[in-house]
Amino acid sequence: MKEKLWQKTSNKLDPIVERYTIGDDYKSDVVFMSYDIMASRVHVKGLAKIGILIEKEAEQLVQGLDELQQKWDAGTIVITPEDEDCHTVIEQYLTDTLGVVGKKIHTGRSRNDQILVAVRLYMKDMLGSIEKKSATLARAVLEFARRHEHVPLPGYSHTQQAMLSSVGHYFCSYLESLLDDCDFIQSVCRHIDKNPLGSAAGFGVALPLDREYTTQELGFSKVQINSLYCQSSRGKYEALYLHALSSLMQTLGKIASDMILFTSREFDFFSVDDRCVTGSSIMPQKRNLDCMELVRGNSAIIRGCHATVMDIASHLTSGYHRDLQLIKKLLIESTTIASESIAVMEIFIGALSPNAERIGKVIQKDIFSADIATALATQEGMAFRDAYRIACARLEETAVDPQENISSKISLGAPGNLAFDRYEKRVSDLCRPSIH
Amino acid sequence: MKEKLWQKTSNKLDPIVERYTIGDDYKSDVVFMSYDIMASRVHVKGLAKIGILIEKEAEQLVQGLDELQQKWDAGTIVITPEDEDCHTVIEQYLTDTLGVVGKKIHTGRSRNDQILVAVRLYMKDMLGSIEKKSATLARAVLEFARRHEHVPLPGYSHTQQAMLSSVGHYFCSYLESLLDDCDFIQSVCRHIDKNPLGSAAGFGVALPLDREYTTQELGFSKVQINSLYCQSSRGKYEALYLHALSSLMQTLGKIASDMILFTSREFDFFSVDDRCVTGSSIMPQKRNLDCMELVRGNSAIIRGCHATVMDIASHLTSGYHRDLQLIKKLLIESTTIASESIAVMEIFIGALSPNAERIGKVIQKDIFSADIATALATQEGMAFRDAYRIACARLEETAVDPQENISSKISLGAPGNLAFDRYEKRVSDLCRPSIH
Amino acid sequence: MKEKLWQKTSNKLDPIVERYTIGDDYKSDVVFMSYDIMASRVHVKGLAKIGILIEKEAEQLVQGLDELQQKWDAGTIVITPEDEDCHTVIEQYLTDTLGVVGKKIHTGRSRNDQILVAVRLYMKDMLGSIEKKSATLARAVLEFARRHEHVPLPGYSHTQQAMLSSVGHYFCSYLESLLDDCDFIQSVCRHIDKNPLGSAAGFGVALPLDREYTTQELGFSKVQINSLYCQSSRGKYEALYLHALSSLMQTLGKIASDMILFTSREFDFFSVDDRCVTGSSIMPQKRNLDCMELVRGNSAIIRGCHATVMDIASHLTSGYHRDLQLIKKLLIESTTIASESIAVMEIFIGALSPNAERIGKVIQKDIFSADIATALATQEGMAFRDAYRIACARLEETAVDPQENISSKISLGAPGNLAFDRYEKRVSDLCRPSIH
Amino acid sequence: MKEKLWQKTSNKLDPIVERYTIGDDYKSDVVFMSYDIMASRVHVKGLAKIGILIEKEAEQLVQGLDELQQKWDAGTIVITPEDEDCHTVIEQYLTDTLGVVGKKIHTGRSRNDQILVAVRLYMKDMLGSIEKKSATLARAVLEFARRHEHVPLPGYSHTQQAMLSSVGHYFCSYLESLLDDCDFIQSVCRHIDKNPLGSAAGFGVALPLDREYTTQELGFSKVQINSLYCQSSRGKYEALYLHALSSLMQTLGKIASDMILFTSREFDFFSVDDRCVTGSSIMPQKRNLDCMELVRGNSAIIRGCHATVMDIASHLTSGYHRDLQLIKKLLIESTTIASESIAVMEIFIGALSPNAERIGKVIQKDIFSADIATALATQEGMAFRDAYRIACARLEETAVDPQENISSKISLGAPGNLAFDRYEKRVSDLCRPSIH
Repeated sequence: MKEKLWQKTSNKLDPIVERYTIGDDYKSDVVFMSYDIMASRVHVKGLAKIGILIEKEAEQLVQGLDELQQKWDAGTIVITPEDEDCHTVIEQYLTDTLGVVGKKIHTGRSRNDQILVAVRLYMKDMLGSIEKKSATLARAVLEFARRHEHVPLPGYSHTQQAMLSSVGHYFCSYLESLLDDCDFIQSVCRHIDKNPLGSAAGFGVALPLDREYTTQELGFSKVQINSLYCQSSRGKYEALYLHALSSLMQTLGKIASDMILFTSREFDFFSVDDRCVTGSSIMPQKRNLDCMELVRGNSAIIRGCHATVMDIASHLTSGYHRDLQLIKKLLIESTTIASESIAVMEIFIGALSPNAERIGKVIQKDIFSADIATALATQEGMAFRDAYRIACARLEETAVDPQENISSKISLGAPGNLAFDRYEKRVSDLCRPSIH
Repeated sequence: MKEKLWQKTSNKLDPIVERYTIGDDYKSDVVFMSYDIMASRVHVKGLAKIGILIEKEAEQLVQGLDELQQKWDAGTIVITPEDEDCHTVIEQYLTDTLGVVGKKIHTGRSRNDQILVAVRLYMKDMLGSIEKKSATLARAVLEFARRHEHVPLPGYSHTQQAMLSSVGHYFCSYLESLLDDCDFIQSVCRHIDKNPLGSAAGFGVALPLDREYTTQELGFSKVQINSLYCQSSRGKYEALYLHALSSLMQTLGKIASDMILFTSREFDFFSVDDRCVTGSSIMPQKRNLDCMELVRGNSAIIRGCHATVMDIASHLTSGYHRDLQLIKKLLIESTTIASESIAVMEIFIGALSPNAERIGKVIQKDIFSADIATALATQEGMAFRDAYRIACARLEETAVDPQENISSKISLGAPGNLAFDRYEKRVSDLCRPSIH
Repeated sequence: MKEKLWQKTSNKLDPIVERYTIGDDYKSDVVFMSYDIMASRVHVKGLAKIGILIEKEAEQLVQGLDELQQKWDAGTIVITPEDEDCHTVIEQYLTDTLGVVGKKIHTGRSRNDQILVAVRLYMKDMLGSIEKKSATLARAVLEFARRHEHVPLPGYSHTQQAMLSSVGHYFCSYLESLLDDCDFIQSVCRHIDKNPLGSAAGFGVALPLDREYTTQELGFSKVQINSLYCQSSRGKYEALYLHALSSLMQTLGKIASDMILFTSREFDFFSVDDRCVTGSSIMPQKRNLDCMELVRGNSAIIRGCHATVMDIASHLTSGYHRDLQLIKKLLIESTTIASESIAVMEIFIGALSPNAERIGKVIQKDIFSADIATALATQEGMAFRDAYRIACARLEETAVDPQENISSKISLGAPGNLAFDRYEKRVSDLCRPSIH
Repeated sequence: MKEKLWQKTSNKLDPIVERYTIGDDYKSDVVFMSYDIMASRVHVKGLAKIGILIEKEAEQLVQGLDELQQKWDAGTIVITPEDEDCHTVIEQYLTDTLGVVGKKIHTGRSRNDQILVAVRLYMKDMLGSIEKKSATLARAVLEFARRHEHVPLPGYSHTQQAMLSSVGHYFCSYLESLLDDCDFIQSVCRHIDKNPLGSAAGFGVALPLDREYTTQELGFSKVQINSLYCQSSRGKYEALYLHALSSLMQTLGKIASDMILFTSREFDFFSVDDRCVTGSSIMPQKRNLDCMELVRGNSAIIRGCHATVMDIASHLTSGYHRDLQLIKKLLIESTTIASESIAVMEIFIGALSPNAERIGKVIQKDIFSADIATALATQEGMAFRDAYRIACARLEETAVDPQENISSKISLGAPGNLAFDRYEKRVSDLCRPSIH
């Protein structure tokens, strides 16, 4: 067993307790290592700036950190359970290679602000990456909507055919939802874009740390000022982040739910090619949308992670508590799931095509009743309520063409007025490489 | 039983089923009535603008709506279970008083977009109101922090004394958390500030509704374009709203948790005057912080409402489903709880005072160990790790003055550098009456 | 404002804080009043039994409690916000009518064990009532299954037609689920059937309370021994109770989900008569299953209440905390919802009929592929995997009769072997009036 | 890539979709492999019993399964992502080693009932194992309670000293809670102790499978009859199982919460030796109960898994959906956490000792006020309410001895009447090796 940072000679932690305490930290910290190294480098430069380290020491430390990053990238350094976490690996490496200078890196910081800043950088990075993936998906959805703009599709309420809609109309609804999610991701990014480095264990330090400098160097837009609040925001910021993922998954989950229903034999509105279809071990005829079911189920997983983070964090008094450590794993799992789900959805959209002929057969006249009532109300000056009561009666004698019906829905955002141009710009903005 | 808007002659709903279906809607809709009237007025003007209503009809309808609002305010109109919801009351009132003209108001809309727009207006209004209340609370917290800036208070991690903090430091952490919450409330407000009116039942209408006009008239900053997305955002926007309340309650809950601990006899760091203290029915000596316990418990209630809204909304296919109706009650309850909790917290802060003398006695030398280690590291050039290992030994021989210790913590946001000026502006901005 | 039980002269609670503290208790306690009176009566008799009250006093108190119960039943006594809770009303009533004797009832108890015992009695009562309602529903489901035993219905997996099932098969699955839920309700009833009366504020009293006697008198099967555990089980027992309701709602929710899907026009497997169908305000043709959508949505509400109770209760240290008070409302709401949902489901089953002809048309040959594969495997001695690979090819040349297919599924619990007799006894046992 | 069981030639699943679809199944299935082999063996014997397999084939298959189990135990067989799940590994192994006979094992079953039965056996096994561990912990708690029966400890309500309790009293409350949890575990075990094998894909098979025989051979106490219900209970049974774990974790979490509070310097009621104490990286004096904080946090993790399972399972229509696959991982993680948490708690109890002297100093007279009021009420015949109002005044003049006070609390389950004998038997019964 390596020596712990906090170890005093008398301390002999029970091995079962120790294993329980470490938990999955050593695995979780794999994703935080590079962020920790990055922040450590800036911390060193900050210490040099205020004269706590001399230039030579800072250079050695930065060089040591660069080396460590290379070795980490090359896979020649790993985090073992004995290391406990990435922070220990970093300090140990610097001490082993630089001797007494290595020990100096921990001046003016704590593992508390180390993990805070690493998680913060990770979340910012991941939000950027997820937004980028969402943008590509949004582009695919927009193109699908354009391509099938005029294909009729029944609109449902209460899972009952309500009024005529179109493939374009449905996919624009998904698109607008996705764009909203991207907006929200940007908001969340702004909210969490605050530097906790320099808060140490939550109570600051007796050093004139230049927190504005490290904020700038790390690319944060603001300092998170109060050092105790840096601690208290743990779980709160993660919950916000997870709400953003959860909202995105809600959108994907709705697409998934619709498509599972619409590809059932009874609906049969869409076909999906073999890229996205799995079979059954005993029913040869089955063409299952497992991947969409998993998107739907995974949206519940992320909701669960979100609720758990709030449960863990919401009952604690001010200051650090070890319970908070458990949040890391939930964060990483959710991020991976969301990221993969977007990718799968994009492939799925590519494998999807509407069965226009079949849809045509399913649409029956009464789907136009509300339209007839509205027409009576507006064209014949009848009160809507009266029109409504006689619309059913007129149904038989009225001929309605689906295409004309769709085109007639000219209110903004209706099937006849999808306003693609309004989305086009937003999608293009998102897809620009320079966004982050 | 009054006639339902959707009633056809043959339909005889079972009374138990009917009661179940109505549920608490007629109660919930009390809070939405005025918003529904407001949106109805704009809908009428919009119909007039595009020539669906002649000027005379529009005037009659607007006047009818004004009358209804007056009667509603005066309490002479109520929503009964037979009415089912506020939408029915409005249409019924207009039909009863205006005859055939009254029936025309439902042209180009559905109860679906009526409730969407009413809830949206409600949420915007409530966010403004909650933000205003939070601003007043923030002011109280800031003043408390200033007043007791230099009163020492142990800082905790793992519920163990860690390093010295101060009353000012703690309350600035609450303040920054509150200000963050207010920022987030503003973000949420921006996200939901989109007009769903004109989406009808989710599929638009065959009328050139001027949705930009109604958007402007209703004070929304944007149109929510796709009519199906207007439906799909139900539950999603409410979840976002509830996350904002939940985050705020997390902040209040942390203050509550801290104060419950810090007013226990064993800590005894703060006194609370009789305004906020309740007794026990069998233990005469008890001074209980019931109100803080309820803030803490109510934060769980709001988390529960939040999770439930996501549960309800996240599994539904596109289009309206009746399940969504259940969200209204959760929204209203959460809003009331959050609003009252802020008010109670403000009163509580006014009833609170730190017991400086008692705190002084509790602080023991070892709370300064980390500082001694840091001092050794920075002043004597010792490596932090080595300093750490000998700090305990030096403890006895070192005299530390709490005030000096606090003042020495000069890193930004630490007890010796609370940076009040950075908060002052934000609080003032929030408290300005013109914010909404 | 009436005087509080715990009020000392100096205490002047802020009115906003007071209102917040009382919350909805005075409303919730309406359901607990009779249980509190019942337990108070037994408490009095217990005190008399150990000589703390003389016989005369006990008689007066019991008589006073009887009078109060009559007035309560008659509606001439109510709980006002000023009363705070039902406990105060009881003690106040006895003191007002009996003078000094009235004050003696609080000897040896606390509001803490008063509410514990009242809630416990309430939960037992409600579980009995819900079980009875579930039994009636189970009977209706069983009869429906019998009546339509041989009506074919496609079985689904992944929302895709998988193999042939039957109406009888589906409804037996609901039935077995319901019977399981009833079993679980009985288990929960056994688990919570423990008397907390006599635990006082959680620390017992210096009186030889005969807790076995009050246990017997109140109809509990066991004493909940440790007085502190009586407190600690608060929230825990309620969570257990809510899990039982939640499980039941899961069953109802599944029926609801199936029926919403199966009554969509695209499926059209069942018809529902007008008793359970609502219409749309703008779409005359709609026949909506609002009541089933609300069953589905309400199952989320109960899940939410369940999670909230666990959130509230799981972070508290031993002993009473005011947060626990919030559980009462969640309990009552969930109970009402579950109870009404069962009633609605029973009416719904009565309004339901399968569309056998339509179902017949939907069933296509490939639903028999797995059966053909199995037949090849068992009759022609082919390995299943090989059979599976050629079943599709044989499909065209094979004639399958749905009725014969159903009858051929003779494994226990399959469509051809529903084993009604095994359910019959369980349903009959449940429906017996003597069960509780 | 190996060939999938369901693979048809044309099918080319996108590799990203495939990876997403497999997810962590191949990892989760490690815990189910042996149960799957066990059930496969019984399935083979069942097929032989009804003549579907000839004796020779059955022998070969059973022998093949035995070999596979040995190789699995020896680690020479693993599940790769390409295998997808344990079911594929089994069938593949048998086919590879036995040829055409191997392919016959899948007759009359589906991967659906394979995983159902494997998970069911796993849950039964784990409940037994967790109960056994809980029994050992209960024994440790009981002994701790006995050893420190008379050590006074303040009882709290509202986190305020309320009345005198004792270490024995507290630990008996934990004990009774644990015993309740064990009872509940047994109930859950009874509820889920039903054999789903033979339900195939949810719709049974056209074979006279002897389900009573396999039920007996697998050690289940009942058949889960309806084959569709076997599917529908997925998620429902797991939720029940997780509620049991959650309830247990609530008990452990309460011990943890109490101990974290009681070992804070301000309380200082208990000492914990070095086996269970960790330090800080920058605060040398810290003695942190990380392991108890993690027990507390992990109780939230299990609540989260529980809620997620209900979220996933509660919205699905009848029949299998791929979403359900995600439940496996939640189940396994929760089981591991619960199991480890019990072990850690047992070690912790061993490392714990009360600081009797310190506790003595903290107890102040007013903790006896309720007792004085009760004494006045019972000994001087004063009405409790009057006694209550004067108890404070008498406080100074009354001498109370903590030991006598504890001994005076003679109501059953109070500090002076802990009734160890009532627990002793239950603990002994639990600890008996033969229980499962």
